[in-house]
Amino acid sequence: MIVDTSKKILIVGLGLLGGSYARVLKRFGFHISAITLEQSDIDYACRAHIIDEGATAPDERLIGEADLVIFALYPHVFVEWIEKNQALFKSGALITDVTGVKRSIVYQIQDMLRPDVEFIAAHPMAGREVSGVENSIDTLFIGANYIVTPTPTNTPEAIKTCTELGRLLGFANVATLSPEEHDEMIGFLSQLTHCIAITLMTCNDKENLEKFTGDSFRDLTRIAKINDAMWSELFLANKDVLLEQMRMFIDKFTELKDMLAAEDTDGIRRVMRHSTARRVLFDKK
Amino acid sequence: MIVDTSKKILIVGLGLLGGSYARVLKRFGFHISAITLEQSDIDYACRAHIIDEGATAPDERLIGEADLVIFALYPHVFVEWIEKNQALFKSGALITDVTGVKRSIVYQIQDMLRPDVEFIAAHPMAGREVSGVENSIDTLFIGANYIVTPTPTNTPEAIKTCTELGRLLGFANVATLSPEEHDEMIGFLSQLTHCIAITLMTCNDKENLEKFTGDSFRDLTRIAKINDAMWSELFLANKDVLLEQMRMFIDKFTELKDMLAAEDTDGIRRVMRHSTARRVLFDKK
Repeated sequence: MIVDTSKKILIVGLGLLGGSYARVLKRFGFHISAITLEQSDIDYACRAHIIDEGATAPDERLIGEADLVIFALYPHVFVEWIEKNQALFKSGALITDVTGVKRSIVYQIQDMLRPDVEFIAAHPMAGREVSGVENSIDTLFIGANYIVTPTPTNTPEAIKTCTELGRLLGFANVATLSPEEHDEMIGFLSQLTHCIAITLMTCNDKENLEKFTGDSFRDLTRIAKINDAMWSELFLANKDVLLEQMRMFIDKFTELKDMLAAEDTDGIRRVMRHSTARRVLFDKK
Repeated sequence: MIVDTSKKILIVGLGLLGGSYARVLKRFGFHISAITLEQSDIDYACRAHIIDEGATAPDERLIGEADLVIFALYPHVFVEWIEKNQALFKSGALITDVTGVKRSIVYQIQDMLRPDVEFIAAHPMAGREVSGVENSIDTLFIGANYIVTPTPTNTPEAIKTCTELGRLLGFANVATLSPEEHDEMIGFLSQLTHCIAITLMTCNDKENLEKFTGDSFRDLTRIAKINDAMWSELFLANKDVLLEQMRMFIDKFTELKDMLAAEDTDGIRRVMRHSTARRVLFDKK
């Protein structure tokens, strides 16, 4: 046996990410249960054979039986859930998550958690512009990056299991960063890009622009369709880093604007050549 | 006969766009000739049956025989070419172009042009991150927008022919704007987006970021691979408009930054909801 499918997996929060986790893991033969708010989501997921069983409230049996618990909740809901329900975990259970910020979550949860349960944090860097379990797909993670963010209190076994989980899910790259490195990186690569996209989308309310748009504007604003409740929470949870990244972007953008005002063609071309050379690094392999 | 394929078409500048024009128009059965700098491009295009014949210098016969001349050159090269070679046009010839800026080109060329030749300007809003005739494809214009930018001196016939050309090439939408409206629109939808992409690509030189990137960063920087000679020229030719758009973007981006600094969650969520609602308009139909 290569994969120990006798382990029972519980997913808390059965939306796009939770549902996609369930779809992939169910294929391996794991017993998958879910706790999520809406009975209709449980019903759908059972009918679609994405999960084996589920409940709409913290269920003693489901939680008590789970060897691995995956949390796919908003950050503050995750923290509250652990506060209220951690007594129900099986002793020796491993818990992990999908939260998009780490510093504000990981230490807080590790500090409050029962000593016989371990939390190893991870961030699956994948998503879609639609949400909900009915939009979950088993190919969501193909080609994407999965980041495990251990702290000094994590055991090598937990880090290894979490890394294996990323591989099972189909991620192309599984990497390890500290919570601090993760938040710095995500502030730039993800949060700053979302700030730019929503600004571009809202800074010009001229009508009929969509009739003339090319693919470049569409590309830069794809992520401007955004879950405002979740992303505002993620922004605030990484406020210091994101503010610094926004300042850095404004400085560089203003430099370019000043070069244009001064008709400094050489300077503009230098930036463009730098940009072109650096972008090559980011091509999908 | 629906399409008058007895008309001879000359393409000046056989790169990605010129080559893609040639590929589509050749399929209809037009006689296509090309003038371009490199003999190897002529050779390739003849071998690939993209054109019927070509020359590396302004050729009296090719120019004198052409009923429709399509210019796919850098703006300043286009203007210089007309200055030097317009005596060679056939009387009654129609000329058009693919130039990405209009105010600085259209009036200048119409003012200097022989009275028996008409210039009707157009902008095919399509491209790829690669260049050269060998990367030209006959599907480049599918789903894209084509904008005709007539002035009061243009005849209804010329506007109609240019519009038909856009339809023949396969553009999904063919629209008409004044040169001023065009430059305003393109300053926002295309030039500002390129400024943002190259800034995002160059504002953080941290190593190994590509190992952690998700699709959002890739999307926002796809166009950061940029032809510096061409785009710096386009930026400068639309300097007033682009500077104004850059200022507008900075103002709005700074507002968002200030809301984050003040932890104004309601304000941030309002921008996100505005962004989400507005982005729906720009989905491809």
